[in-house]
Amino acid sequence: MPTQTFKRIVLASRPEGAVTPGNFRLEEVPVPELADGQVLVRNHYLSLDPYMRGRMNDSKSYAAPQPLGEVMIGGTVGEVVASKNARYAVGDKVVGMFGWQEMGVSDGSALQKVDTTHIPLSAYLGSVGMPGVTAWYGLNKIIQPKAGQTVVVSAASGAVGSVVGQLAKLAGCRAVGFAGGKDKCDYVVNELGFDACIDYKAAQDAKDLYRMLKEATPDGIDGYFENVGGDILDAVLTRMNAFGRIALCGMIAGYDGQPMPLKNPQLILVSRLTIEGFIVSEHMDVWPQALTELGGAVARGKIKFRESIAEGLASAPEAFMGLLKGKNFGKQLVKLV
Amino acid sequence: MPTQTFKRIVLASRPEGAVTPGNFRLEEVPVPELADGQVLVRNHYLSLDPYMRGRMNDSKSYAAPQPLGEVMIGGTVGEVVASKNARYAVGDKVVGMFGWQEMGVSDGSALQKVDTTHIPLSAYLGSVGMPGVTAWYGLNKIIQPKAGQTVVVSAASGAVGSVVGQLAKLAGCRAVGFAGGKDKCDYVVNELGFDACIDYKAAQDAKDLYRMLKEATPDGIDGYFENVGGDILDAVLTRMNAFGRIALCGMIAGYDGQPMPLKNPQLILVSRLTIEGFIVSEHMDVWPQALTELGGAVARGKIKFRESIAEGLASAPEAFMGLLKGKNFGKQLVKLV
Repeated sequence: MPTQTFKRIVLASRPEGAVTPGNFRLEEVPVPELADGQVLVRNHYLSLDPYMRGRMNDSKSYAAPQPLGEVMIGGTVGEVVASKNARYAVGDKVVGMFGWQEMGVSDGSALQKVDTTHIPLSAYLGSVGMPGVTAWYGLNKIIQPKAGQTVVVSAASGAVGSVVGQLAKLAGCRAVGFAGGKDKCDYVVNELGFDACIDYKAAQDAKDLYRMLKEATPDGIDGYFENVGGDILDAVLTRMNAFGRIALCGMIAGYDGQPMPLKNPQLILVSRLTIEGFIVSEHMDVWPQALTELGGAVARGKIKFRESIAEGLASAPEAFMGLLKGKNFGKQLVKLV
Repeated sequence: MPTQTFKRIVLASRPEGAVTPGNFRLEEVPVPELADGQVLVRNHYLSLDPYMRGRMNDSKSYAAPQPLGEVMIGGTVGEVVASKNARYAVGDKVVGMFGWQEMGVSDGSALQKVDTTHIPLSAYLGSVGMPGVTAWYGLNKIIQPKAGQTVVVSAASGAVGSVVGQLAKLAGCRAVGFAGGKDKCDYVVNELGFDACIDYKAAQDAKDLYRMLKEATPDGIDGYFENVGGDILDAVLTRMNAFGRIALCGMIAGYDGQPMPLKNPQLILVSRLTIEGFIVSEHMDVWPQALTELGGAVARGKIKFRESIAEGLASAPEAFMGLLKGKNFGKQLVKLV
């Protein structure tokens, strides 16, 4: 009987500028024998997230670089297919960090069993997973919005941004998004219930972007959730109200090493703003509360989401490159089963 | 008997770029008759502070612009010379906001009687006044340093910076300053007791400035108190430790409207920094505690300070222009009596 195998993708080389397919290598490896205490998981979905781009560089970032030749890091959801661990049974649905591979072995310590009765499995990689908690933390712990205030978020149709705006609406705020293209903006307003969405791709220049933002934020901006950086942040700074708060979650615009200066940092002083950079994995204490609230809201239909699903592990590199260019529409996943 | 008069300086025009003597006008006006409840104060010292530059512009800032034709805003200390207010007696020493003038009339509501037994009157415009409370607030409420951490402050020999560093030392921190020129740096280290001071004027370029900063901050930077902006802030950002905190108090480098971009805002995210802009007059709740602590420390010689004193009201414009260029050495005052 032939040895069973599964596929995985490792980091083959570090990007010089933009990510290319050559930075990845698809491998086929044998399914390992389980030792006592271990479980074998077949991954159903792999999560693709912008933070992975930072890990591909060998420079100072908020986490150690992704080692060359090792499986690309990433969140996964799947099903236990073999178990020598009393806490897990075959058929259990689990969230893990197995990375870009079809299967994974764990001693169970970094796995989380999840209930898919009212919440689809894939949502545990999105609104009820790391992106959702990221939105929850930045909004509730940094922006701390009050009813009637205006909250703005970039990448508003994405996994994080969509949750930020919907949570802001639930908190009684005016929610305004930035997104790229009319389709995404229509979705953000009509499906997600934002009050307005700015198609930044339709702006002719920085002045035009500011004009669009001003129109969408007649009372200024009290809280901003930043996923992008660059020109959008410059425009937002000029619209911030006194004592506004900015949660800095991602600056995807500079991930390939482009210069991305902030034009008018003095506005931080003029408007007495607080800007705080954060990474959600350093705030594990809030996860239980956040996941409980997010799970309840998703189950009740109060938080909607959309997914871009690429089929098969081999499609992951292209889907990831698309994500970095904003080609996805909603949470980017790779379907593995 | 001729009417008594006193001199005052009004804002004659708004600066276009750098401040010029023509932006000011010296006037001589009669000493007014006191109404019931009023006191007449002869100002001994006028405080000159960078924030005044912002008020001279007619643009969005943290306060209303200084009106044209009216007395320049400013803190003063002086002595009551006539009183129709039971709460004030002739001879009382008072702190007020009479601005750039030799005398002032008040209904007593914005005056503060001060004790000059152990603290010189002029210190109430410096270490035991607005600049001292500014330092106290930014350090204790924003930077929140812990013993053993490294705190850096720009304009370290100035009225605010000198207090920041000395308070940081009292809190058990390593205190590092930036100052312009060897004399100021020597003073910051030898007299004020900072651990190191970087002469930014001696840096050949941004790389050299970074090298000097790195040498002075071997364990990185945990807290930064910003009075200046520009290149120094860029250098500091690259040395900030994870979860570092930046109190943004002044950005004098951009007061004349020069572009002053922040080169690498992504470092705020990479190092999960918090940056907070503040203006101390919006935090009046902390003043009593801060002034008590600062007064005690000055009286016990734990906080030292130095003053640059210009003689006579007519010297105020030139002294102010010098202050904006860093020509002062310590707290800039104008002696009026």
